[in-house]
Amino acid sequence: MLIEIICTGDEVLTGKIVNSNFSCISQKLEDFGLTVRWGTTVGDDRETLLNAFREAGERADAVIVNGGLGPTIDDLSQEIAAKAAGLELRLNEDWLARMEEFFRRRARVMPPNNRKQAMLPEGAEVLDNPVGTACGFALDIGRARFFFTPGVPRELRRMLEEEIVPRLLSLSGTQAAIHLKRFHSYGLGESHVDALLAGLEDLVPGGGVKLGFRAHYPQLETKITVRGCDLHEVQQKLAPVQEEVRKRLGNFILAEDDNTLEGVVLKALAVERSTLAVVETFTAGHIASRLVHLPGAEAVFKRGIVSRDLAQIRSAVGLDGRNLNGEVSCEAAETVAEAARKATAASHALAVLVELDEGADRIDLGGTICLAVASPDEVVSRRARMLGGRDWVRLGAAELGLDCLRRYLQGLPVVERIDFERT
Amino acid sequence: MLIEIICTGDEVLTGKIVNSNFSCISQKLEDFGLTVRWGTTVGDDRETLLNAFREAGERADAVIVNGGLGPTIDDLSQEIAAKAAGLELRLNEDWLARMEEFFRRRARVMPPNNRKQAMLPEGAEVLDNPVGTACGFALDIGRARFFFTPGVPRELRRMLEEEIVPRLLSLSGTQAAIHLKRFHSYGLGESHVDALLAGLEDLVPGGGVKLGFRAHYPQLETKITVRGCDLHEVQQKLAPVQEEVRKRLGNFILAEDDNTLEGVVLKALAVERSTLAVVETFTAGHIASRLVHLPGAEAVFKRGIVSRDLAQIRSAVGLDGRNLNGEVSCEAAETVAEAARKATAASHALAVLVELDEGADRIDLGGTICLAVASPDEVVSRRARMLGGRDWVRLGAAELGLDCLRRYLQGLPVVERIDFERT
Repeated sequence: MLIEIICTGDEVLTGKIVNSNFSCISQKLEDFGLTVRWGTTVGDDRETLLNAFREAGERADAVIVNGGLGPTIDDLSQEIAAKAAGLELRLNEDWLARMEEFFRRRARVMPPNNRKQAMLPEGAEVLDNPVGTACGFALDIGRARFFFTPGVPRELRRMLEEEIVPRLLSLSGTQAAIHLKRFHSYGLGESHVDALLAGLEDLVPGGGVKLGFRAHYPQLETKITVRGCDLHEVQQKLAPVQEEVRKRLGNFILAEDDNTLEGVVLKALAVERSTLAVVETFTAGHIASRLVHLPGAEAVFKRGIVSRDLAQIRSAVGLDGRNLNGEVSCEAAETVAEAARKATAASHALAVLVELDEGADRIDLGGTICLAVASPDEVVSRRARMLGGRDWVRLGAAELGLDCLRRYLQGLPVVERIDFERT
Repeated sequence: MLIEIICTGDEVLTGKIVNSNFSCISQKLEDFGLTVRWGTTVGDDRETLLNAFREAGERADAVIVNGGLGPTIDDLSQEIAAKAAGLELRLNEDWLARMEEFFRRRARVMPPNNRKQAMLPEGAEVLDNPVGTACGFALDIGRARFFFTPGVPRELRRMLEEEIVPRLLSLSGTQAAIHLKRFHSYGLGESHVDALLAGLEDLVPGGGVKLGFRAHYPQLETKITVRGCDLHEVQQKLAPVQEEVRKRLGNFILAEDDNTLEGVVLKALAVERSTLAVVETFTAGHIASRLVHLPGAEAVFKRGIVSRDLAQIRSAVGLDGRNLNGEVSCEAAETVAEAARKATAASHALAVLVELDEGADRIDLGGTICLAVASPDEVVSRRARMLGGRDWVRLGAAELGLDCLRRYLQGLPVVERIDFERT
């Protein structure tokens, strides 16, 4: 099935906003085994919109149009859709009532220009939008089925999942049940994970398992799409595959599905009623900033200390008398972590010390990371050297620190070589 | 002049990466008064690439193609460009020598597959790439001039500015000299700034001044594009306009052009040989993380302290004996800032305390921010209330804290009402 995406709006066309809706749509379809063939971006202009709709209607089987469903005069999608399909616009009374109810529940009166959002090409199929006033709809233009979606990302995502993907799967004759399983890892590069998971798709004799990746440094997302004729079959196919992924990627899996590294760490501490102190240097508060604002963090996170100056760190954790030799070492990290734990009365402490190379920022600029995790029972530490410039080292050090804490809390080895370190 | 953009690559088409190159190109052209009319996104596929080139070549006057100039077999831009233009590919000896030199200077031998990057359609005009091995080029396809650019953002940006914009301006017959002046502000919404700057474009009798905005919460960027027949005329037109912007936006301008708020703060401290301590609660290390990793920060930033727990903050700044009443107030912020200054031996301290509303995250969830700046001479404080959900409040509080410090260091009033606060 040939699928196209048309993104509309002057703000997108002029680059005022980065078009993340395109990748959102495209990724969501990929997750369900549907592939986008062509993308078009046009502004809020009648002539170009009409041309874009007509050209896509000649090329594609299905077209997803994003944007232009709002109440203002530059929102043109319904009008041009009707024109391209040779239909009249008609007031959809049901949607009008829905909108009036939407405003009533927020103790507001619907402004008159919102009425425009209930004007749909006659005969168009309504695509529900439970979280906004923009009414999605579907109709045929040329040889293609067109699906019109709102520009607000939250509304788009929901309509895609609940209204559009099922219709596309049905149009394409694809098997009905599908599930996307996601694993998040840190420390293994994409090609390494790809090699580790070789043959995974063949574990299920009948097929229907597809492997994909999305790298967003420092983390890698491994995606397993499983298709079957019903949910039961999907679960049966998924079970051995996900066990195998867990076995092969092992300690490197930091979270699954919608979970995050910081969420996993926070939860592991919370369930044991543990508390945490964090000491950072060049990571600059990046570790703290991923944890501290999360709901529930106020009960777990005791204190974060940030400084590039070891003398300041020493003073902040009550080590004024101690000499840390002024240099970053595992011993220094251990001393700092243990002292931070005591100074803040936290049960656990993480200290991440970074010695950045001298000189201007460049692609091979590196840093030496010494980190330690202190608990009531012991102090463990790890050293790593990373290259890749200031930002790369900073992000890598923050991730390594959080991930080593995750490993410690889960009883896994804190020291395990990762692909991003150099010796 | 009708300009189109074609973005190529499976990673972009499948949404694996968000296509920020499109907005980068489009914005850059807008900055020079050039408007993009149509965008196309296609994958690494010969047939669709050829169709995309041919269709754009029939519609447009100029087309910028991004991506597909790399050394691997899925990089197809030169091949398909030659086919669409009816030309042969020829080895460009000059570019080959450039690449060999590129590798030699990095003490590496050029891999054989890089040779492909020097194969250009015969007669194509070379567009220089001083920072990479992908050779840009220009040629005619259909009725349009095509400009082929690399997918690496850093290489793209440089080629756009130095090679492509001048050629487009010349093609479009636009006046030769152009300058983009940028002002960054915090605290005034886009429509407010738009109103404050009403009539600005008319200050210059002959015209050639264009006003634009780019909002990225919490900051707003105000862009002034000035055109003239030469640089002297541009400077003459710009002078009264930029003075007027500075007058009308006044204290709200936090930086100009490539400068940033954190950079301005760091520099203001560094020139006075001042040093800084920062105490944060719900902003979670976000303020520290914007300052601490910057070059030069190691000499200025003494210590950052992060905790959601006022008792921990008290202990961290040596106020164990003092009762802060357990609540967020300007008095508490002042006490904490002054104590942090002393505890860290910093000349200045910023304390940003946030009391977040109770309950689940929602669009009207708010926070009360009390912040203080302490210096050797005095302590000043400011209170603000913001709504908009957890993330909105967190970002707003961090920005307000840094901006109040900027105001203090520049001798401006720290308390001045902003559009984002509610009473």
